[in-house]
Amino acid sequence: MKFDLDKSMEIQQRTPAVLKTLLQGLHEDWIMSNEGPETFSPYDVIGHLIHGEKTDWRDRAEMIMTYGESKTFVPYDRFAQFEESRGKSLEQLLDEFDTLRSLNLTWLASLHLSAEDFDKKGVHPSLGTVTLRQLLTSWTVHDLTHIAQISRVMAKQYKEEIGPWVEFFRIMNY
Amino acid sequence: MKFDLDKSMEIQQRTPAVLKTLLQGLHEDWIMSNEGPETFSPYDVIGHLIHGEKTDWRDRAEMIMTYGESKTFVPYDRFAQFEESRGKSLEQLLDEFDTLRSLNLTWLASLHLSAEDFDKKGVHPSLGTVTLRQLLTSWTVHDLTHIAQISRVMAKQYKEEIGPWVEFFRIMNY
Repeated sequence: MKFDLDKSMEIQQRTPAVLKTLLQGLHEDWIMSNEGPETFSPYDVIGHLIHGEKTDWRDRAEMIMTYGESKTFVPYDRFAQFEESRGKSLEQLLDEFDTLRSLNLTWLASLHLSAEDFDKKGVHPSLGTVTLRQLLTSWTVHDLTHIAQISRVMAKQYKEEIGPWVEFFRIMNY
Repeated sequence: MKFDLDKSMEIQQRTPAVLKTLLQGLHEDWIMSNEGPETFSPYDVIGHLIHGEKTDWRDRAEMIMTYGESKTFVPYDRFAQFEESRGKSLEQLLDEFDTLRSLNLTWLASLHLSAEDFDKKGVHPSLGTVTLRQLLTSWTVHDLTHIAQISRVMAKQYKEEIGPWVEFFRIMNY
C-alpha cells in the first residue's frame, strides 16, 4: 500500500479510542504485567506513546520542514516513560495520550502538506537520511505495532494456562 | 497469571467493541489486505471469530460438561469464513460477532462453573486430552492473538513505505 495521509490519519485518529476500549477498567494483572526484563507492560506502552507525541514524531516532522538535512533529530528515549508515568493511573495516561494525539493531528492537518513536502528529507541519529513520507508512515505503523504488542503481552500472561493449545498460538513464542 | 473466569470475561466482553473501534469505517485497503497466500485479512479474521462463536468454543465447553472424555470434539474449520462471510459487509460481520459473543457469555455466566468444573476433561481431535480450564483460557487468548494479528496485518501494508525504519519494527517480519 502506498502512503496516503488520509489513510494514515484514519488509523492515527482512532488509536486513543482503541487503547481505551482495550484497556480501561481491566484488572491490574492485565495492565501491569510484561514479557520479562526490559520489556513493556500495556501501562508502559501508553507512557511510551505519550512520550512519542511529546518529543518524537511531530518534532521530527517540524525539523524536516524547517531544517531539512542541516540538523539531526534528537535521539529518542525509549525508556522515558518509566520516570514520566510514575504516580499516574492508566486512565490518566490514556486521557493524556488522547489529548496530545488530537492536538498533533490538528497541527498535522493544518500544514496542508503537498506531494512534494512528503519527499523532504531529514537526518535520523541512527538511520541516516529519511523522508517526511517515511516518518509519517512510521508514526502510523508505530501505533499499530504497539496495539499488537499490548495484545500479545496480555495473551502471554495466560501462556501457562492454555496447556497443549500453545502449539496453535505462534505469537506466544515471539 | 492463573486462570480466573472473571479476568477472562473482562477481555471477552470487550473484544467486539475493540474490533469495532479498530476497524469500522476504515478504507478497504486496510480491511481487505492480508499477509500473502493462505493468510487472513482483518475482514477474514472477523469471519473466523464468528465461526468460532458458532461452532467451536461454546460447543466444546458443552461437550466437556456433557460427555467428558467419551466423545471427541468436532474438528474446527479454519477456512469456513471464506464461504460464510461472502456478500457480507464488515459492519454486518462486526455486529454478528458482537451478538454471538454476547449470547455466549450470557450462557457461560449462567453455568455458574465451580473450581472442580474447570478440571473436567474432553478430547481435542489433534491435541488429545484437554481441560475446561485450558479451553476457556484459550478462548480468551484466541481473542487477543487475533487483535494482535489484525494490527500486525495492517502495519505490514505500509512495510514498503517506512524506508529504513523497518529495522525498528521487528513485527514487520513475523
